[in-house]
Amino acid sequence: VRIDVLFGAHPLPAADVANRVVAVVDVLRASTTIAVALANGARNIIPFDSTEEVILRSKSFERREVRLAGERRMLPISGFDFGNSPAEFTREMVEGKTVLFSTTNGTGALVAVQGARDVVVASYVNFSAVLVLLRTALRGGTDVAILCAGRDRQFSLEDAACAGRFVRHLLRRQGGEVLLNDAARAALHLERGYGDDLARLFTDAAHGRALAEAGFEDDLTLCAQLDAYPVIPVYHDRQITKLGPERER
Amino acid sequence: VRIDVLFGAHPLPAADVANRVVAVVDVLRASTTIAVALANGARNIIPFDSTEEVILRSKSFERREVRLAGERRMLPISGFDFGNSPAEFTREMVEGKTVLFSTTNGTGALVAVQGARDVVVASYVNFSAVLVLLRTALRGGTDVAILCAGRDRQFSLEDAACAGRFVRHLLRRQGGEVLLNDAARAALHLERGYGDDLARLFTDAAHGRALAEAGFEDDLTLCAQLDAYPVIPVYHDRQITKLGPERER
Repeated sequence: VRIDVLFGAHPLPAADVANRVVAVVDVLRASTTIAVALANGARNIIPFDSTEEVILRSKSFERREVRLAGERRMLPISGFDFGNSPAEFTREMVEGKTVLFSTTNGTGALVAVQGARDVVVASYVNFSAVLVLLRTALRGGTDVAILCAGRDRQFSLEDAACAGRFVRHLLRRQGGEVLLNDAARAALHLERGYGDDLARLFTDAAHGRALAEAGFEDDLTLCAQLDAYPVIPVYHDRQITKLGPERER
Repeated sequence: VRIDVLFGAHPLPAADVANRVVAVVDVLRASTTIAVALANGARNIIPFDSTEEVILRSKSFERREVRLAGERRMLPISGFDFGNSPAEFTREMVEGKTVLFSTTNGTGALVAVQGARDVVVASYVNFSAVLVLLRTALRGGTDVAILCAGRDRQFSLEDAACAGRFVRHLLRRQGGEVLLNDAARAALHLERGYGDDLARLFTDAAHGRALAEAGFEDDLTLCAQLDAYPVIPVYHDRQITKLGPERER
């Protein structure tokens, strides 16, 4: 079996994800926000490339059924209910709602994945939950790809380190040979370098520093809360829902 | 000043290289081959995207003036004088000659760099020579970019590790603040992981393993010979020549 890490390549080569389980990582902040929203009872999250699509789609819902959310250049979008700060997605605000969501990097990465067997949304706050799914896939002989959304199509440190954490844990209890691509090996080295010191990771990362400078320090703290929101967000039929026994409650 | 590492982005954003000194790294094997050819007295090397351009251009030279060189899928191109094995570029074969050169990754990366102040070709075999140039640039206040050619537009471990070696050495004796992008930080972590163990680096790297399997083990040994070919190959006016006092001999 293979574990490949993909560093924000656009367009994504179809062969890199075909018939695989693909984890899309955008730690700061889209993946984290999605996990928090689902953990707090959002019915589903629909990702869009553009804000115009969000607005257009919102017209097919009753106003009370939906929440419009997203950011451009880290800031909330005019007229939307939320930005991309995970702390905004409280149970009071999202329970039972459909969240229409557009962010600069994370949602675009999701929409770009075509032909995968399953697509899950991964971050530190739901790390172990997603790990279970990826491990199950590998043990069943399904290759795994971990797609780092990156920032403006550039390599981003925090996504690569999070990918490396998945690679390390997946290798640990996996019998038999596992093939790693070069990016997976590099991610492992990064993960070894930062370990659990996510505060240092986010301080070193350009996007972490930019968020701190823009006043989003609290988001960084939340995004570093390992396993605080143990959900498995699955992207299927153009929407993200929570996998598992709690799905139907 | 800034040191940015760029992981094989295509197309290359012009802002990432404008007015900078750019080092193009394709350790396996184009950058190494270029250093060896110039060290062995090649007059100049002209990189081309396509083999057709090589053949067309060769017609404007006397046959004895030129050497046609390059690879596709690691193998020599039919009708060319050399492949991309650096050991082929002996003094007997290249001294005083113009080398018309097309490789899958390295030459494309060179041709893609537009608007840089200076472009140099970097590898392990001419590491310290290129380092001097980059350090001089930084001390003069010029930003540096290190472009990892990668393999088929994918991240490649050996180029990133070589870039990390440049970053580490540049930081060591640089006064004042140096800004690093995320890829530069990741490259540093990689470099720390491999250090001088280039044999292990090439064994871990997908392209290194592919070359070994294709019978090019000796090339890997040569590509790991740190500072064995201490030249500074400069790409200017669409050709690569050797910088320095030996240029005119």
